[in-house]
Amino acid sequence: MIFDPILDKPQDECGVFGMFSPEPLDLAWFTYLGLFALQHRGQEAAGMCVSDGEKFHVEKDLGLVTQVFDERRLDSVRLANARVSIGHVRYSTTGSNLRFNAQPLTTRTNKGILGLAHNGNFVNAREVRNDMLMQGALFQTTNDSEVMLNLIARESHMDLVEATAAAMKRLKGGFACVLMSRTQLLGFRDPNGVRPLVIGQRDDHAYVIASEPCALYAVGARLIRDVQPGELVWIDRTGLHSLMVAPKKPTPCAFEWIYFARSDSQLDGADAHESRIRMGHQLAREHPVDADIVVPVPDSGIGAAIGYARESGIPFDYGLYKNPYAGRTFIAPTQEARELKVKMKLSPTSAVRGKRVVLVDDSIVRGTTSRQIVNLLREAGATEVHFRVSSPPIKHPCFYGIDTAARKELVASTHSIEEIRDLIGADTLTFISEQGIREAVGGPGLCLACFNGEYPAGTPLLNDVDKLALEV
Amino acid sequence: MIFDPILDKPQDECGVFGMFSPEPLDLAWFTYLGLFALQHRGQEAAGMCVSDGEKFHVEKDLGLVTQVFDERRLDSVRLANARVSIGHVRYSTTGSNLRFNAQPLTTRTNKGILGLAHNGNFVNAREVRNDMLMQGALFQTTNDSEVMLNLIARESHMDLVEATAAAMKRLKGGFACVLMSRTQLLGFRDPNGVRPLVIGQRDDHAYVIASEPCALYAVGARLIRDVQPGELVWIDRTGLHSLMVAPKKPTPCAFEWIYFARSDSQLDGADAHESRIRMGHQLAREHPVDADIVVPVPDSGIGAAIGYARESGIPFDYGLYKNPYAGRTFIAPTQEARELKVKMKLSPTSAVRGKRVVLVDDSIVRGTTSRQIVNLLREAGATEVHFRVSSPPIKHPCFYGIDTAARKELVASTHSIEEIRDLIGADTLTFISEQGIREAVGGPGLCLACFNGEYPAGTPLLNDVDKLALEV
Amino acid sequence: MIFDPILDKPQDECGVFGMFSPEPLDLAWFTYLGLFALQHRGQEAAGMCVSDGEKFHVEKDLGLVTQVFDERRLDSVRLANARVSIGHVRYSTTGSNLRFNAQPLTTRTNKGILGLAHNGNFVNAREVRNDMLMQGALFQTTNDSEVMLNLIARESHMDLVEATAAAMKRLKGGFACVLMSRTQLLGFRDPNGVRPLVIGQRDDHAYVIASEPCALYAVGARLIRDVQPGELVWIDRTGLHSLMVAPKKPTPCAFEWIYFARSDSQLDGADAHESRIRMGHQLAREHPVDADIVVPVPDSGIGAAIGYARESGIPFDYGLYKNPYAGRTFIAPTQEARELKVKMKLSPTSAVRGKRVVLVDDSIVRGTTSRQIVNLLREAGATEVHFRVSSPPIKHPCFYGIDTAARKELVASTHSIEEIRDLIGADTLTFISEQGIREAVGGPGLCLACFNGEYPAGTPLLNDVDKLALEV
Amino acid sequence: MIFDPILDKPQDECGVFGMFSPEPLDLAWFTYLGLFALQHRGQEAAGMCVSDGEKFHVEKDLGLVTQVFDERRLDSVRLANARVSIGHVRYSTTGSNLRFNAQPLTTRTNKGILGLAHNGNFVNAREVRNDMLMQGALFQTTNDSEVMLNLIARESHMDLVEATAAAMKRLKGGFACVLMSRTQLLGFRDPNGVRPLVIGQRDDHAYVIASEPCALYAVGARLIRDVQPGELVWIDRTGLHSLMVAPKKPTPCAFEWIYFARSDSQLDGADAHESRIRMGHQLAREHPVDADIVVPVPDSGIGAAIGYARESGIPFDYGLYKNPYAGRTFIAPTQEARELKVKMKLSPTSAVRGKRVVLVDDSIVRGTTSRQIVNLLREAGATEVHFRVSSPPIKHPCFYGIDTAARKELVASTHSIEEIRDLIGADTLTFISEQGIREAVGGPGLCLACFNGEYPAGTPLLNDVDKLALEV
Repeated sequence: MIFDPILDKPQDECGVFGMFSPEPLDLAWFTYLGLFALQHRGQEAAGMCVSDGEKFHVEKDLGLVTQVFDERRLDSVRLANARVSIGHVRYSTTGSNLRFNAQPLTTRTNKGILGLAHNGNFVNAREVRNDMLMQGALFQTTNDSEVMLNLIARESHMDLVEATAAAMKRLKGGFACVLMSRTQLLGFRDPNGVRPLVIGQRDDHAYVIASEPCALYAVGARLIRDVQPGELVWIDRTGLHSLMVAPKKPTPCAFEWIYFARSDSQLDGADAHESRIRMGHQLAREHPVDADIVVPVPDSGIGAAIGYARESGIPFDYGLYKNPYAGRTFIAPTQEARELKVKMKLSPTSAVRGKRVVLVDDSIVRGTTSRQIVNLLREAGATEVHFRVSSPPIKHPCFYGIDTAARKELVASTHSIEEIRDLIGADTLTFISEQGIREAVGGPGLCLACFNGEYPAGTPLLNDVDKLALEV
Repeated sequence: MIFDPILDKPQDECGVFGMFSPEPLDLAWFTYLGLFALQHRGQEAAGMCVSDGEKFHVEKDLGLVTQVFDERRLDSVRLANARVSIGHVRYSTTGSNLRFNAQPLTTRTNKGILGLAHNGNFVNAREVRNDMLMQGALFQTTNDSEVMLNLIARESHMDLVEATAAAMKRLKGGFACVLMSRTQLLGFRDPNGVRPLVIGQRDDHAYVIASEPCALYAVGARLIRDVQPGELVWIDRTGLHSLMVAPKKPTPCAFEWIYFARSDSQLDGADAHESRIRMGHQLAREHPVDADIVVPVPDSGIGAAIGYARESGIPFDYGLYKNPYAGRTFIAPTQEARELKVKMKLSPTSAVRGKRVVLVDDSIVRGTTSRQIVNLLREAGATEVHFRVSSPPIKHPCFYGIDTAARKELVASTHSIEEIRDLIGADTLTFISEQGIREAVGGPGLCLACFNGEYPAGTPLLNDVDKLALEV
Repeated sequence: MIFDPILDKPQDECGVFGMFSPEPLDLAWFTYLGLFALQHRGQEAAGMCVSDGEKFHVEKDLGLVTQVFDERRLDSVRLANARVSIGHVRYSTTGSNLRFNAQPLTTRTNKGILGLAHNGNFVNAREVRNDMLMQGALFQTTNDSEVMLNLIARESHMDLVEATAAAMKRLKGGFACVLMSRTQLLGFRDPNGVRPLVIGQRDDHAYVIASEPCALYAVGARLIRDVQPGELVWIDRTGLHSLMVAPKKPTPCAFEWIYFARSDSQLDGADAHESRIRMGHQLAREHPVDADIVVPVPDSGIGAAIGYARESGIPFDYGLYKNPYAGRTFIAPTQEARELKVKMKLSPTSAVRGKRVVLVDDSIVRGTTSRQIVNLLREAGATEVHFRVSSPPIKHPCFYGIDTAARKELVASTHSIEEIRDLIGADTLTFISEQGIREAVGGPGLCLACFNGEYPAGTPLLNDVDKLALEV
Repeated sequence: MIFDPILDKPQDECGVFGMFSPEPLDLAWFTYLGLFALQHRGQEAAGMCVSDGEKFHVEKDLGLVTQVFDERRLDSVRLANARVSIGHVRYSTTGSNLRFNAQPLTTRTNKGILGLAHNGNFVNAREVRNDMLMQGALFQTTNDSEVMLNLIARESHMDLVEATAAAMKRLKGGFACVLMSRTQLLGFRDPNGVRPLVIGQRDDHAYVIASEPCALYAVGARLIRDVQPGELVWIDRTGLHSLMVAPKKPTPCAFEWIYFARSDSQLDGADAHESRIRMGHQLAREHPVDADIVVPVPDSGIGAAIGYARESGIPFDYGLYKNPYAGRTFIAPTQEARELKVKMKLSPTSAVRGKRVVLVDDSIVRGTTSRQIVNLLREAGATEVHFRVSSPPIKHPCFYGIDTAARKELVASTHSIEEIRDLIGADTLTFISEQGIREAVGGPGLCLACFNGEYPAGTPLLNDVDKLALEV
């Protein structure tokens, strides 16, 4: 555990889950199932709290849900009369895999014991944090949840719902949170609804709040609706309540449909799998090519590749085998690590031999992996490789909870499309248009900040903040 | 570790790897890469030996390749002047996950230190074992490799190659082995070639022997040829040598092409991915149906589903999301464990809603999982489910190294196809014909014993053997 | 990790260590050595922080010092230019072995990052905690250090030394603390000096603060002096500074000399080993007996047994073998666990056969172990067992950081000495007098609260506090 | 795990345990207790086998008894109707801490499954091993038990008792073994009785065989007698049987009384604690000195120090504190490791300040530790240090199971006593005489080979053996 003078980089993509039952229910078990269904949203850490109205159990640690929660540890949070619970999975690409930053964050306050789990990023967290330091607050983690909990605790004259609404107004950015006391479950979403949050219910009337509907289905609940942008909902023994705290124009993150959400999820009325198929249609219409087969980069390019194949009439084929055992623990000598890891993970099948291949992937970030995949296909005998990408070029960092790499590492930020094509060695390279994404997803407005630099939910005041942080 | 009076059940499917280099090479590292590429053939245990002509290092343990070999442990087998190495991955569905049965098995003999790793099963291992017990042999494991090593050591007047050839003649069944001394690498395959074994070479002249070509590619070698059924090859500083010890009519295991081999592997001249596509064609021709989409059970049904879609003209779609984090460590209450595990692993996408679905899978063993998948599709709105299986019904146990479950658990052994269809709740259910499999795989003869009960490489003398084993 | 509505029981006995060097020094390593020397003061958890003026590294976990800090983890806190560090070992007899309560506690405040480690107990911690909750504070642990750090952070207009002095005035009880910022090391002791704290210095001018002198010697420092009761010392690049914040009549805890301190430690001018020898003299004078040998309960009764033997002229002998491998991990069936553990730990030698034995131990808490030891001696042939105890009967709980068991479990709280003698089966049983302890230790006044119920540093307001705690 | 061309060095000191019960008994649990009592004889590895007449369970691993056997693992060897069991603890000072060398060694043979655990060393193991290699035997470990088991299995026409007697006759050296089949427990001791082995019985008629009586007491058995030198005993449902296979003049190892045996053990009629007291008497008579206190090196010097103090009239005192947490896992930079480890383990108390100290230890091997202890005492203010050693100078290696370090490392092998005194910095240094040891131990003849080079049980034919071993 390392406290550096420079605060950690923005929080990364995560998954949240919460449940409230009017009758006793094995919520530790259901939270385990819900988190397991959300595992794709975060593999670094997992945790949960459970309460029966009196006791308040917490467990969290680094690792996958099934690693953190073996039977003994799941038993240790179990409560016979559990009525409320929350859980969290956390993702981090680099460095800050601190055990003490795992969520939910739990604390005693003048409103009793609280547990909070969040997905996303408060862009003004540092300013608020510095204000509170000056008022005597302690910050034991670099976790933004601690800022939210301090804001709530400061409002000692308000009840928990009022204080949470006040804190929502103070914080800016893209976030979706679940918060629990011993007797209440709260869920809230940033004013633009950048990060997703949905509500479900079981036949026994237990409510569920989660990042994606797949977590509802995992616990036997049906999807009721999305939490609205800027809405605060809370559930207690009297049922579900709602307050529109700070609604703005909805701009949910486009990347949920491009890549992040599971293909069995529906968010803000738009189905992930269908959107991906439509992205493929769109790509085929925008960027047709004469070729023999359409090959997805597994698994993220499958939906768009099917769509491209259907629209273009070129046969879909399985041209890249994906080794399901490839993971983080693979040892590789530093100098050739990335290249080797790609090679051990993906390997071309005979389908590409002598073929003109349309290769479909969801995005290009740094471009290095793409180059290796193109190379693998050529070595396996592909005569042409036409790269089709189901997102526009990523040119700008995300401040709302997706770690896209620093700007200078984004290949599309510093190179033209022709230069990228040359770098990755494809015969042709094209990206879907912004308008194409809007039409493929359909319904809602979208945050496309990483493509066009227009940040609907504000940006951090980096200079001021870094200076203050150093002083502390 | 438990020694029961009843000997363990037949050895299970495994992967083997061996390498010999005329010049010093980091063979620990290459064996790690090769085993990683063979990980799909065994997830229970992994191990390797490395020698430089004098030292002889061994490491093996329960776990995946990346779990057994972290950097420290890989370093512990590393030798600066390594010239020969072998490795093994082991699969076991039940019970006998004994650490002491992990391979390679190493032992001192009158031919120096030897290491042996095998894939497959000697059907007369028990008779041979009992013979040797009576001559004063010790058996410290229940591993068939120990029988082979005892046979080799008994021939104290022969050199290693001669003694191995003699042992090959004595043993029956389906097996593919790699064997190393400090200065030689040997590879051999049973008379019928039931289990696969291929030879490759790198540009630096290092030779590789492995269960599948993917392991050759992983270490930068190209495929030279298959080891022939009944052939013994050995490699030393003078190059590659061969002896046809006991060739019979080749009957490689059909299941390698149906399911086991990686889709980027080519065995005995037949490509795995292409064979699967052709199985789909064949299925569509044998069992056409009027439907809206073709959906594979991921990942094993993908190849045949693509083939079915192409031949039938019905669109291929991705109707089942597979949670990549689903694995053995998932906790589930016993009474609903299997059902829950299927549900947490597979989940239907919107693609199946309102559709008549052709569901393609590679095989049906017990049928319970199939029923749940059909059920998931119906709950998600599929109006019809037509189940197509790219292997014939499995009615007989395998004695050559594949653990297919006991005969009474094989649903096709005790039920008619119509009864199975009723059990799993499909609208129609059909299997590919034996002839269809033969045509789809093409080239070689095939072992189809689990479908038709014709065992080309003999069967164990169960009654005699069990009695003797009990006495010991 | 469990948050119960009832706050955890008083903090337990611990060891603290701090170091400040004007020149870069490997403080991670020295802190490791210092904590290792203090391991007898706490075996449940260990931790340390190190700073070089900019970076601030922290590691802590459950386990012994050598378990928490393997080479990799010690390296992870190491800093090339380290100048300040603190460390902590923690002891807990029951239940609350929470990983998140491990010390040092670290937090960002308006005075920069701070790390605090304490030994002892604030008797008014709950009142202060509740006050601060009402002002909006968060409490993430049940650790009293967090109360102290909140008090310090509240004084946002003061510098760190002033704020710490203010906090010292607010808190009551028995405590000895080390506190570090990036550039300062502070040490302070409660007004009565109930808990020990000493200052040392190395030849290279690095200062050390620790619970006992043995930790100074371990890092090559010599003992300069004790921190005085109520004194706050701080060390920075300009040297050692002192402020007498709240001195009262010194009453250090008598149990440090009876049992807790290492026999090579000197505290407040009184040597532990010599004090124990004198306790033996005193016991022999107060309670002579006609016997054949004097046998210590190893290891805690050795000093007093030697003293008893010398004063009485009865030969000292080694009548009880102590199995050095006896520890917490020994498995024992519940119903006979305690008895079996005593038997596996202590076993009589031939020295006691046919002898009248004077058995010397440092204290009797519950009495159950004593009964078994007497029994062991009798079974081994001792003809008489005369039990001599080098502390007075323990009748009252400690509120200053020693976990003596609940009052109702203290056998001397509910039984007369004659009843205890009968319970444990000794021929005679006598305890040293309070006056005897005072004379044996010599120099300072002493806290004898657990013997006589006179609490020099206050007692907790239990009723009020529990009520408030429940509301939160 | 590493197979080097040079075979591992001689087996080290160990503890063995075996139990046979006519009625079902929880032998896994009793074996755990017995091994725990023998833990001082080996800390590297532990293991046990248990049988109920049909099942045969084995568990063994590196670690202390309490580390290898947690509740889950102890349960895994438990059998409801257990009737026979054996166990082993193993000690190794260097290198060869191979998991696969842990004992008991178990194997299937023509006499059924056998388990063997041994203490000691066969001096002709290599010759026998090479003979058997030539006959086709496999050697999977470097464990001498495997040689014994091969010898037994070779005699396929004999029953287990006859074959074991034949094997005893073939092997030379110092050894004590327990051997079990599913229905018999055997115990045997080398012809000279160099290594100890005792027999006990419980009131329920269960028999116990163990290295020391403390293991009998631990399972509620009383000492019946020692196994005689050259005797083979076996226990089955008909009771205890005995065969004098190869008795010679008894010469048990003197070091059992000097250092190895627990102070509560009696071996071959001589009590360990009393023998140590008498060694102290003897030392005081042979080497009196004018001094103020007698200080033991804890814990091994305590008995002799008490004896010295009594005989000389100089007061015994506790001048060296021993840190009970000092162990192998302590991290120390290589260059100062040994010195630092001594300093962190032993630390002088105030007792030595200004005193002329008689320092009593059981032996001096390399002398480096002794020098540091003398130095510690001087730094703490001792004015004179008179070193008294309760064993003669060790000049020769042990071939019978005690690892005394290589001859060139034995300081007494290469230095005069005066040179050693100078090296360790003592004012005087004297050793007990060989005759003194004989008188102190009393009863039996003794093996004093490490002092005088007279090896009663033979020596290894090193040259021949090494050559053969290299060829293999």
